[in-house]
Amino acid sequence: MQTSLPLSATQLAAYSSFAHTLADRVRPLSRKWFRHPLAVDTKADDSPVTQADREVEAALREAIARDYPDHGIFGEEFGVSHAEAELMWSLDPIDGTRAFISGNPLWGTLLALLHKGKPVLGLIDIPMLDERWVGAAGVPASLNGEACRVSGCSELRQAILYATSPDIFAGAELAAFDALAQAARMRRFGGDCYSYGLLASGHVDLVVEAGLQPYDYLALMPVIEGAGGVITDWSGQPLGLESQGRVVAAATPQLHRQAMRVLGAAVT
Amino acid sequence: MQTSLPLSATQLAAYSSFAHTLADRVRPLSRKWFRHPLAVDTKADDSPVTQADREVEAALREAIARDYPDHGIFGEEFGVSHAEAELMWSLDPIDGTRAFISGNPLWGTLLALLHKGKPVLGLIDIPMLDERWVGAAGVPASLNGEACRVSGCSELRQAILYATSPDIFAGAELAAFDALAQAARMRRFGGDCYSYGLLASGHVDLVVEAGLQPYDYLALMPVIEGAGGVITDWSGQPLGLESQGRVVAAATPQLHRQAMRVLGAAVT
Repeated sequence: MQTSLPLSATQLAAYSSFAHTLADRVRPLSRKWFRHPLAVDTKADDSPVTQADREVEAALREAIARDYPDHGIFGEEFGVSHAEAELMWSLDPIDGTRAFISGNPLWGTLLALLHKGKPVLGLIDIPMLDERWVGAAGVPASLNGEACRVSGCSELRQAILYATSPDIFAGAELAAFDALAQAARMRRFGGDCYSYGLLASGHVDLVVEAGLQPYDYLALMPVIEGAGGVITDWSGQPLGLESQGRVVAAATPQLHRQAMRVLGAAVT
Repeated sequence: MQTSLPLSATQLAAYSSFAHTLADRVRPLSRKWFRHPLAVDTKADDSPVTQADREVEAALREAIARDYPDHGIFGEEFGVSHAEAELMWSLDPIDGTRAFISGNPLWGTLLALLHKGKPVLGLIDIPMLDERWVGAAGVPASLNGEACRVSGCSELRQAILYATSPDIFAGAELAAFDALAQAARMRRFGGDCYSYGLLASGHVDLVVEAGLQPYDYLALMPVIEGAGGVITDWSGQPLGLESQGRVVAAATPQLHRQAMRVLGAAVT
């Protein structure tokens, strides 16, 4: 009996090609606004949003609706359409809006294709650096078309640990993260989705975050897994639309287990 | 009576051109090592150092010694030569070694020319992003040859605040920085010298750090001042070779004063 993939390899290849087309299409939009005066509004969750976020997501939705009118869409700025669809696109037009509005090029556009709620294709595009990571079920992850691979780091004390900011951790989460950082070789902040690209390419060994939304992490999963890494919530459960936004992504199962031991003890 | 500059405009222009030549010369060296396997050693102060740091500084020292054999050199990796020279070059071959060794492109090469211990010329080169900020006494600062200017932000509550990491602050410094961040509009970590370039270009309003070495901040001073900003230690004193490594750089004197009030109260 062969392993059954949710979509055929041919279908996945076609959607992967479409995801590249989407990312190509919106790069000029987000690049155009970068380092240009831009009104910044604050959303209900206190996160910033700009005209750039809205324009990019609107362009993505329009392209998906034209080519795949029956697909669902779940976007950061404009919510869900076709919620019942078997295939749904998750969109984060500008992941790292805080970086974007402060002229820092480490922000990205995130696209994921979900099949019955599970990500089968993910794309991390970094427009200002011309870097794009892609992952899909059953094929190796790639950076700009070249296969990429996580590091072999299996010891927490040798691991380079990244997180976007200490400010994403609430209450006991911060103490758990600090304990993890103490046990690691080095920690560094800043990065948003870029940190996960660095993990997929073997430069960073561990990324641990909290307070993420599904559109923040769904696109990362096929990239990390396709590069040979492990990504789950802080209890080791698969991430999905219903997860609580605590993410641990590691280069190896051994490193993942060690990180989980430190994180799990502090938050359960 | 005209203002007397320590060097004539013609001399400064010649040294500025030489600084560009130096930065051009070592870009291929640092780029060659970026994202390639590299042994990482730990220095006495617990900071990491690699063959890339050493190769870049050795190439810079060789070029200076050939063209200006009587100039002094003060480098991060190989110390001081010609300590008595009136003109001295301060070199940080790779500022942001932690970024460098984790595949993160936000590191830079820092060059400053000091006249009797005061920086009169500074250069921040970001090899992977092809961005270079330059500042010199009496001329506007520039990014890639175009004049750049700080923002007009004069209110702490509207300021975007950057620092490399909370881990650079010791004891009361961290509480002071946290208090400042509370009063600011937003804080973001990560960046090393890149944060000061973003400040000089008006994207970031305030950068506050501690634990820096002279070769970390001397090159930043002519850039920030040439872009219309203010950079001092946490007591408002000019930074120099003898400073304690606490830096506050602000877009406007008003913002600088507000930041100093919060920082000064906590550490004196």
